[in-house]
Amino acid sequence: MVTVHDIEQAATRIAPYVHRTPILHSRTLDALIGATVYFKAENLQKIGAFKARGAMNAVLQLSDEQAARGVVTHSSGNHAQALAYAAGIRGIGCTIVMPENAPRVKVEATRSYGAAIVFCEGTLQARESAVQEVIERTGAVLIHPYDNDHVITGQGTATLEFLQELSHRNIQLDILMAPVGGGGLMSGTAIAARGIQPNVRIIGAEPEAADDATRGLATGVRQPPKPPTTIADGLRTALSDRTFHYLQSQAVYMHTCSEQAIRTGLRLVMERLKTVIEPSAAVTLGVMLEHPDLFRGSTVGVILCGGNLDLQGMDVPV
Amino acid sequence: MVTVHDIEQAATRIAPYVHRTPILHSRTLDALIGATVYFKAENLQKIGAFKARGAMNAVLQLSDEQAARGVVTHSSGNHAQALAYAAGIRGIGCTIVMPENAPRVKVEATRSYGAAIVFCEGTLQARESAVQEVIERTGAVLIHPYDNDHVITGQGTATLEFLQELSHRNIQLDILMAPVGGGGLMSGTAIAARGIQPNVRIIGAEPEAADDATRGLATGVRQPPKPPTTIADGLRTALSDRTFHYLQSQAVYMHTCSEQAIRTGLRLVMERLKTVIEPSAAVTLGVMLEHPDLFRGSTVGVILCGGNLDLQGMDVPV
Repeated sequence: MVTVHDIEQAATRIAPYVHRTPILHSRTLDALIGATVYFKAENLQKIGAFKARGAMNAVLQLSDEQAARGVVTHSSGNHAQALAYAAGIRGIGCTIVMPENAPRVKVEATRSYGAAIVFCEGTLQARESAVQEVIERTGAVLIHPYDNDHVITGQGTATLEFLQELSHRNIQLDILMAPVGGGGLMSGTAIAARGIQPNVRIIGAEPEAADDATRGLATGVRQPPKPPTTIADGLRTALSDRTFHYLQSQAVYMHTCSEQAIRTGLRLVMERLKTVIEPSAAVTLGVMLEHPDLFRGSTVGVILCGGNLDLQGMDVPV
Repeated sequence: MVTVHDIEQAATRIAPYVHRTPILHSRTLDALIGATVYFKAENLQKIGAFKARGAMNAVLQLSDEQAARGVVTHSSGNHAQALAYAAGIRGIGCTIVMPENAPRVKVEATRSYGAAIVFCEGTLQARESAVQEVIERTGAVLIHPYDNDHVITGQGTATLEFLQELSHRNIQLDILMAPVGGGGLMSGTAIAARGIQPNVRIIGAEPEAADDATRGLATGVRQPPKPPTTIADGLRTALSDRTFHYLQSQAVYMHTCSEQAIRTGLRLVMERLKTVIEPSAAVTLGVMLEHPDLFRGSTVGVILCGGNLDLQGMDVPV
């Protein structure tokens, strides 16, 4: 079980290798939402997402013997770049298993951090057997994107920083929000927040089109993922047993929003905060826009999880 | 004639009302361009553009008698919001003349700062007669978007801050770049830079589709504007006699780039710096991409002029 004490130690461990990201705020957004909202800008983190924290902590926690064998994971997203970055810092080997249809820009970005890429077919089975093959061949240690306590501990350091900085400014949150995909960010977020401020309300945000955590926590039974249709591509995965348990035990309340609200949230953050976020980071704002009664008059903290928006082919309006 | 001393005084005058914007930097962009490039993030300025500086300085320079009569200008862009903001700070009346086809979002933004809007037809003649009518009716003082020494002086404060901050970090620029539309920003930029560091190379950037300043400085004869086709909507205007003279006397070198390079520059800044800019702010990067020999191995400073990208209808790729 990860504790807030573990997260405090991880913060010190990874501090030389990650950014202490700024907190953003817009009075126009506050007026629109009817709440006071502070955004922790993890889109400005190393590799453009909070994932650098978890991967860095997991890699630094390896024994020298483990580290010598290198690390492996499966991801076509931010965890791939994060693990490649962290392995590069420690100077160890890193292999990333990616589906063969992964966007070329993500493949190149991951390779640019020095990782070896192994392509596989797009099925869960193909992915797992490719990872297994790497492990058998090299002895590499699997660093799962979220089903890993060292990763979860690292992700929690964003909340630690966030609440410390707000406290220095004499600001106390009523509500802390983060998006939920596999649940690694939310597990770390909730453990850190409950440890520091037990009465804070913790709200997880999911697309309606990927609402396994919302249905799972409502029914008490973990749910399988839905088909990957949401534009919030980082949130298409489902909770693991581990992250389902953390979200239950830390009393995380889940809410969903439509795809349209995600798009509006994306536009509002980019227009008002002038900062680039990816669709997964707009789902929290989408929930605020579609459930205003939950937030009215409150002081809200939001983890902006990442900024790796794929702008290839973006239409620039005249 | 504006001097660097005027700009220093303006910096003190407007300091309580404008942001001291950050300097951004990306090693990936440096590697791509083959130069070391620092970006002064005026997209994070009040109202989302450097224009807040010039308008604020001009409004604060009004006598009490002038101020009592209010201010007027013609603009459907950032100067409209900037003047409305500045007038609001001083608590005086502000009227903005806009073409009747101005985007509703810009009309609303300007109105939200407390300005009165007067609509006119889209011709130069209609605009000037609408402004004249406001002046005759109210006695308001015209604050031109760029053909005004107080405005130019205010725009120069961005460069003053930029060079001061770089100097604190022991960084000396070889080249300073800014985009050129009406030439107000570049006039202030060049006067400030020459006053502080006489040998700096000053490069102005224009779209090929709006290259009046490039042709004008090359021929020694001021050129009329081209039809407004460039996506860099802030750069569609032409130099005035005043700004033409400043650019000539301060030895500004002009270069142009294609519309495609502007789009690529926009994408690169947003992907790499994770900051939102408008197309006019991407023209400098477009010039660097299309004329790499001018920049290779140099230390370059770039004024990112604004961040008011119109995201309505933006396609978010899945």
